[in-house]
Amino acid sequence: MKNILVLGAGQSAPYLISYLLNEAKKNDWFVTLCDMNYELACSRINNHPNGNAVEFDVNDETLRNTLIKNSDVVVNFLAPTFQYLIAIDCLTHGKHVVTASYENVRVADLHKDALRKGILILNEMGLDPGIDHMTAMQVVDGIRKRSGIIESFISYGSGLPSPEVDSNPLKYCITWNPRNVAMAGDAGAQYMEDGKIKILSHHQVFQRTWTVDVDEFGTLEAYPNRDSLIYQNIFQLDKVKTMIRGTLRYPGWSETWLQIVRLGMPNENMKIPGISGKSFSEFTEMFIPVNSNGTKLETRVANFLGINPTGKIMQNLKWLGLFSGEKIGGEVKTAAEVLTKILSNKLPLPEGARDIVILVHEIIAHFPEESKRQKITSTFIEYGEPNGFTAIAKTVGLPAAIAAKLILQGELPITGCQIPTHPVIYTKVLEELKTHGFVFSEKISDLES
Amino acid sequence: MKNILVLGAGQSAPYLISYLLNEAKKNDWFVTLCDMNYELACSRINNHPNGNAVEFDVNDETLRNTLIKNSDVVVNFLAPTFQYLIAIDCLTHGKHVVTASYENVRVADLHKDALRKGILILNEMGLDPGIDHMTAMQVVDGIRKRSGIIESFISYGSGLPSPEVDSNPLKYCITWNPRNVAMAGDAGAQYMEDGKIKILSHHQVFQRTWTVDVDEFGTLEAYPNRDSLIYQNIFQLDKVKTMIRGTLRYPGWSETWLQIVRLGMPNENMKIPGISGKSFSEFTEMFIPVNSNGTKLETRVANFLGINPTGKIMQNLKWLGLFSGEKIGGEVKTAAEVLTKILSNKLPLPEGARDIVILVHEIIAHFPEESKRQKITSTFIEYGEPNGFTAIAKTVGLPAAIAAKLILQGELPITGCQIPTHPVIYTKVLEELKTHGFVFSEKISDLES
Repeated sequence: MKNILVLGAGQSAPYLISYLLNEAKKNDWFVTLCDMNYELACSRINNHPNGNAVEFDVNDETLRNTLIKNSDVVVNFLAPTFQYLIAIDCLTHGKHVVTASYENVRVADLHKDALRKGILILNEMGLDPGIDHMTAMQVVDGIRKRSGIIESFISYGSGLPSPEVDSNPLKYCITWNPRNVAMAGDAGAQYMEDGKIKILSHHQVFQRTWTVDVDEFGTLEAYPNRDSLIYQNIFQLDKVKTMIRGTLRYPGWSETWLQIVRLGMPNENMKIPGISGKSFSEFTEMFIPVNSNGTKLETRVANFLGINPTGKIMQNLKWLGLFSGEKIGGEVKTAAEVLTKILSNKLPLPEGARDIVILVHEIIAHFPEESKRQKITSTFIEYGEPNGFTAIAKTVGLPAAIAAKLILQGELPITGCQIPTHPVIYTKVLEELKTHGFVFSEKISDLES
Repeated sequence: MKNILVLGAGQSAPYLISYLLNEAKKNDWFVTLCDMNYELACSRINNHPNGNAVEFDVNDETLRNTLIKNSDVVVNFLAPTFQYLIAIDCLTHGKHVVTASYENVRVADLHKDALRKGILILNEMGLDPGIDHMTAMQVVDGIRKRSGIIESFISYGSGLPSPEVDSNPLKYCITWNPRNVAMAGDAGAQYMEDGKIKILSHHQVFQRTWTVDVDEFGTLEAYPNRDSLIYQNIFQLDKVKTMIRGTLRYPGWSETWLQIVRLGMPNENMKIPGISGKSFSEFTEMFIPVNSNGTKLETRVANFLGINPTGKIMQNLKWLGLFSGEKIGGEVKTAAEVLTKILSNKLPLPEGARDIVILVHEIIAHFPEESKRQKITSTFIEYGEPNGFTAIAKTVGLPAAIAAKLILQGELPITGCQIPTHPVIYTKVLEELKTHGFVFSEKISDLES
């Protein structure tokens, strides 16, 4: 009997777990699901005969090593910060590991060690990053077969509430790890525009936005998503003049979040003494200079930021509860953790509401042999099931689950640190994704040469 | 024969090495000095019979472990990012280790492991952090003996060129690791002012400055230095209303550096493809939106930042070479590395020039038994020797060197992860520092109660 170890039972994990339990039954495998929250892990396993829940503290070295040692493949759905730790343990015990997170630079440095040990460390195996890479590679391959030269590569991804959901003025709901929403853009961003590299600090990411019209959906806004340039090499786009990966939101999110960044709230570097005993308004007060007059907090925040005290942005900040006298409570320590708590409390996906996942590739290529210039737009929209699996859980979890299955079946003959831009990986995974209805619609339009 | 392993032969290390070689001769010890730059290490050892230079790549695991295994104490003067790696190796081999860097949170978590192994992991054993903590503890102890209650604790530190040095308009010279200057403030800062916690983002650190008059020296500017609040607990200042650690500069530095931060240049998260082949002006262009008109770069940068195109700040940015057509060259990969290169090239300490180190503690305490409120100002100023040891090398290196000596002599009977606020450490180290002329001048003035 082969053992699958799943670390993390959070919001992105339920579909992954369900898929693996189902496969475990067919193949006589066993799934061990670990989470800090034992009840949550139990509810996900739901007494399945091929599964077991374990209460898990990632810092418990003995437990961690025992569990990894006894597994055949590890699926790591913990927060990205633990990617390196788990990768190191998997190296030690010679176990394959799959994550849906961006490949950490220190993990990438383990490539040679992974080759030596003959294990596969497979990262970016979710939706975005994950399905986006794999489908982009497919479009790129199609263009290459026509001897096309790619001039512009723009790729968008996002998980959002479905348009009919109207539970909050920001038109955003938390459907995955809220910490990642709180810290979005903290490393800055870089991309290429008209042949020029552009670099943004955290403060500029949510200001440098633009409008995107998604076919049969409507108008969204995009902000630049991390480092778009690393994919230029991976996709081998030597001639590209524009290379941008963007994250989509309903218009208005970014102008509000920009002010939260400008206040300095997305900070996980420092613990704030006694923060859980303070109120949200006392927390907000920490980010503006000492009160020199009697004006109320809201006005002082607006003045400090130089924004209109009665406008839409201030209404949103107020709606998030930044000026509320309610105690923060709980076990929060850093400003980022307070922000994460605010997001979880104020922006849940309402019961019975659907979420939606949108991926769009917009690629412009020149085809010298055909004397053509074309724009190829490839769009994927997936809706969640009301009261069932969310679209994000399905699209993040399925690629990782399929990869784990293929590894156990010996169908992924590749080792080292990889992301799914390698044909050995994406060919097989996309094939199975198709059987689950994950299909992109493609539109090609001719441009003037 | 006991072995001292010194890692890093950079700008802060020469006095440390000289002291240890001298002690090695007296005590029949041996000093092994490691650096990437073998020539530099050789020149520091200068054929001393009790010393040896080794070419050292910190990523060479085998060499690293061999060297640490064969040592009795490790003095780690590598960049702060390697503090954890070296601490882990020292734990493995049961060796004491001393650094002059801020204690890394992950290293602090090794406290229990260090206790179990019976080793001392001693961090913050330099100038600032280091001498500042030790002397502050001395002042605090003096106040406690008089049953005083500390209301305000403000502490300043800095390494600067001596006032007569006039080699650049920023009045700053690189006398220690320029990377730390480039990335200063990147984690933000927090402090307490009038009983209120204040938190700043990287963008605000260099804006929230204030003036400091240093006795018999003149007026400087200060910006908040990292997390001042962690020291409230360490110093046991329960009643304190103001708790600020600040870094001193000649007035004007911060307003210029603020704009470099606002551009987004201090970023070490992303590698910029092909950056070393670009010019400095092409680099600067990356941080402003795509050129939509023919205006020259300087004007567009000023417009983007909203600062005067002909003012002092723009003159400083120009002086730093941000608009120069010169190729960057070398092995730089990230924006932070380009910035580090600019600092090293443009702001060296001229030959024959002196640097200066300034530490100031301003403590306000209430003495109920004496019915007094007093301000105690404790000031330390040390000048470097022209063409000899810099003040920074002396003040950063000596505390770590003394600690290494005391460890080898069995005079520091303490284990675990420590910083020198522990009396076992600071009493002995301050005693020896005094014999080297490191004395603070104290001024006490009565305040209205």
